[in-house]
Amino acid sequence: MEDNYKKEQTVTFIKPPVIIGRYSLVGKKEGQGNLKGYFDKVLEDDKFGEDTFEKSERKIMETIVFKSIDNANLTPSKIDMFLSGDLLNQIITSSFTARDFNTTFVGLYGACSTMAESLALASCLIDGGYFKNIACATSSHFSSAERQYRNPLELASQRSVVSQWTVTGGGCTILANKGKGHKITSATFGKVTDYGIKDTDNMGAAMAPAAMNTLVTHFRNTKTKPEDYDQIFTGDLGKLGKNILIDLMLEKGYSLEKNYSDCGHMIFKDNQQAYQGGSGCGCSASVLNSYIYSKLDEGTFKKVLFVATGALLSTISGQQGESIPSIAHAVVIQKGD
Amino acid sequence: MEDNYKKEQTVTFIKPPVIIGRYSLVGKKEGQGNLKGYFDKVLEDDKFGEDTFEKSERKIMETIVFKSIDNANLTPSKIDMFLSGDLLNQIITSSFTARDFNTTFVGLYGACSTMAESLALASCLIDGGYFKNIACATSSHFSSAERQYRNPLELASQRSVVSQWTVTGGGCTILANKGKGHKITSATFGKVTDYGIKDTDNMGAAMAPAAMNTLVTHFRNTKTKPEDYDQIFTGDLGKLGKNILIDLMLEKGYSLEKNYSDCGHMIFKDNQQAYQGGSGCGCSASVLNSYIYSKLDEGTFKKVLFVATGALLSTISGQQGESIPSIAHAVVIQKGD
Repeated sequence: MEDNYKKEQTVTFIKPPVIIGRYSLVGKKEGQGNLKGYFDKVLEDDKFGEDTFEKSERKIMETIVFKSIDNANLTPSKIDMFLSGDLLNQIITSSFTARDFNTTFVGLYGACSTMAESLALASCLIDGGYFKNIACATSSHFSSAERQYRNPLELASQRSVVSQWTVTGGGCTILANKGKGHKITSATFGKVTDYGIKDTDNMGAAMAPAAMNTLVTHFRNTKTKPEDYDQIFTGDLGKLGKNILIDLMLEKGYSLEKNYSDCGHMIFKDNQQAYQGGSGCGCSASVLNSYIYSKLDEGTFKKVLFVATGALLSTISGQQGESIPSIAHAVVIQKGD
Repeated sequence: MEDNYKKEQTVTFIKPPVIIGRYSLVGKKEGQGNLKGYFDKVLEDDKFGEDTFEKSERKIMETIVFKSIDNANLTPSKIDMFLSGDLLNQIITSSFTARDFNTTFVGLYGACSTMAESLALASCLIDGGYFKNIACATSSHFSSAERQYRNPLELASQRSVVSQWTVTGGGCTILANKGKGHKITSATFGKVTDYGIKDTDNMGAAMAPAAMNTLVTHFRNTKTKPEDYDQIFTGDLGKLGKNILIDLMLEKGYSLEKNYSDCGHMIFKDNQQAYQGGSGCGCSASVLNSYIYSKLDEGTFKKVLFVATGALLSTISGQQGESIPSIAHAVVIQKGD
């Protein structure tokens, strides 16, 4: 496995892109969890006044995108590109949001790794001088994800003990080539990793090896260790996946015991019946765009490693007996002046 | 509509990325069409020896990716990034191909615009010095697309007269920061355009306005006219969509009469019962990586404008009464020395 890590995976930015705007929105359940008080908006009703869950999810994305542009003191016409993806088939949440947004659209699919995927790509495009302001967004919705990936809520299917709860919510970050704010100083693009997990309920176990691969690659390429970061966050491994990652990293000689959190593990309280914790693109996106940036604002953190993880399965691939390929992309975020 | 075109949409490359490898593969029907003899491989059996259409599609993508790397005289370990997307839910064709490919993976979703989306993004990433060699790929499969988007083949459903035939096939281009080959000299990233078409069979009509928007933006930003290109290719508008685009462009003051072709219109013969012509990510990808590059090799073309178009709908969005948001991304390809 030694030669599995490539130095070309990591990019260090010469003119680090600046986070000039952000917005987070979550559903009612998420708003009652551990991170209560950090989110910009908490929905009272997960349908958000719409008649379908898919339309609610779209309204979530529209809200986070346009509110984060406001937060950056920009108008939508100043955004050069919208880099977005989501969990719904053909990423309709992103595409339909892009329809009402007079800017170029680059649709991504990285499952729950999308927040980091979009930030890493946007950082290259801004650092390289191709675009000035890019909106990076992703979202998910518990009820649209349940009926697409598992069962409609009406069936009241019993959940597996290893399952996670798809977060209703999302987050958008506006990256720019200038301005004041925290900065993205480097990115490590991930590879698809598959340790043969076939239990589609147990995505934490499927994604942990991908997070390990990206973390080890990042540490080697940047000649850093876990203790060089104030906090390391993975996206949505959940409680079980987090513990697997800690073990996998120990085998590689890295201890994550002191300064590692998982957004999926953090977002819900133990008594909220979210099983292993939160998942979905909106999980790490809403935590990044609320809690993590707030802690950088306060100065509690000065340097954060954000590693969003994605399980790249589909209902068809599961039904055809395939295991779950997973990926993780990482970005380093440093406190702005 | 005048202010709808933004100069920021177009990027001109200072160190234009070089096309150092390519490979095209199509199914039996496509291999009997107008472009017979141009493709690198034509399947005898659309199942490609696999037991499901989805696995066949994956084998198509694996084949085009690894054969194009051979064609570039590289080994897979020399590829820094795999930029790919496809039509299957959660782009499993791309993700599962990435699993067996020891390189970073950035998953895209641009429906049938994916070939141009990947080339435009990869060109920025190479021109900017972030990566040296990037594999850009996409594919589609008639039978997996039919059962996902419309009906399983077993139902033998009657097709609409305005429908198109999803191409079984794909294409992969290896872009590099050096070497010999044709070059990508500029790219225009598209915006989502929606003229309210709700007939999910009539994707040519839905996508034509997106192609118009990107073409007009490209011509304005680069101060060029249609006659400055030897040939302009759209992705998969088909016969009807192509005629709509010609009309829309005339209204904007541009005549496409002399040097414009559509890959979807070209690929099948009139007597092949493909209705308005080919569609699917694999349509423009297989035509670009065979016929178009061959004509550049020969010197028949010296400068080509390649505009791949995508219809960003899903089965759910159609069922919920939505119209079809569409997009088109453009790249300029110039003959190498």
